Amino acid sequence: MTLTDIAKDTDGGAQISACATIYVCTTCRRPDDPEDYPRPGAALAEATVRAAKNSGVAVTPLRCLANCKRGCSAVLRRTDPSAPSWTYVFGHLDPTVDAQALVQGAQLLARSADGLMPWRGRPDALKRGLIARVPPFDFSEPSE
Amino acid sequence: MTLTDIAKDTDGGAQISACATIYVCTTCRRPDDPEDYPRPGAALAEATVRAAKNSGVAVTPLRCLANCKRGCSAVLRRTDPSAPSWTYVFGHLDPTVDAQALVQGAQLLARSADGLMPWRGRPDALKRGLIARVPPFDFSEPSE
Repeated sequence: MTLTDIAKDTDGGAQISACATIYVCTTCRRPDDPEDYPRPGAALAEATVRAAKNSGVAVTPLRCLANCKRGCSAVLRRTDPSAPSWTYVFGHLDPTVDAQALVQGAQLLARSADGLMPWRGRPDALKRGLIARVPPFDFSEPSE
Repeated sequence: MTLTDIAKDTDGGAQISACATIYVCTTCRRPDDPEDYPRPGAALAEATVRAAKNSGVAVTPLRCLANCKRGCSAVLRRTDPSAPSWTYVFGHLDPTVDAQALVQGAQLLARSADGLMPWRGRPDALKRGLIARVPPFDFSEPSE
């Protein structure tokens, strides 16, 4: 059974209607980690799948988010593009402790009125590990 | 006239049907730059608007991509979510020379058959400046 299968199996059909999705890089390692497989990213993905159980948050493990120098890495966004949100890239995640922070962050983003993840209430791992944010497709900044 | 106005004015109605969009952070500076305004990011945004003229690529200046430690910063993706692509975050950009690289990268992504920006032919600034990539909404990784 692969991680993707576990993700599908754990939440059953809930993925389809999930409010937010966490993409976890399974090939990530931290700068001092050996290059051996399985990588710490796979452990983070597995821990996140388990932490997200019954949370309404979907987890999609994938092979590379290209944030390799700053692993472990994950991306969060709302699942439904018709309820647009900003997309957040996080790095420097610890696979042994940060899975729950990812789920909490996804839930914060899902509940956000403006599609931004509020700083207040954001888990510390998602404050210090913020790498970048990407605007939704419908984004336009008002003229100054 | 703001940068957003310039962007709209330069390409006229072409933004609506643009094949790809470059979001440029106007508040970015490089680690050694002073905190003064206007920031180097604004210069990169302006240069990118001019470089994209008649290219079919839209440019959207915006205030923050949260890649502040690794500026200057820009994000590329296809404009139309129904022609999904990966989204690319770039940093360490030089506002005096890298605008054309962003336009070339956007055109490479627009022409890509699989929604990924090919490494071959990618401008050097978009190789060394790669910060992260985000999968399209319809992404699912095949089981191993």
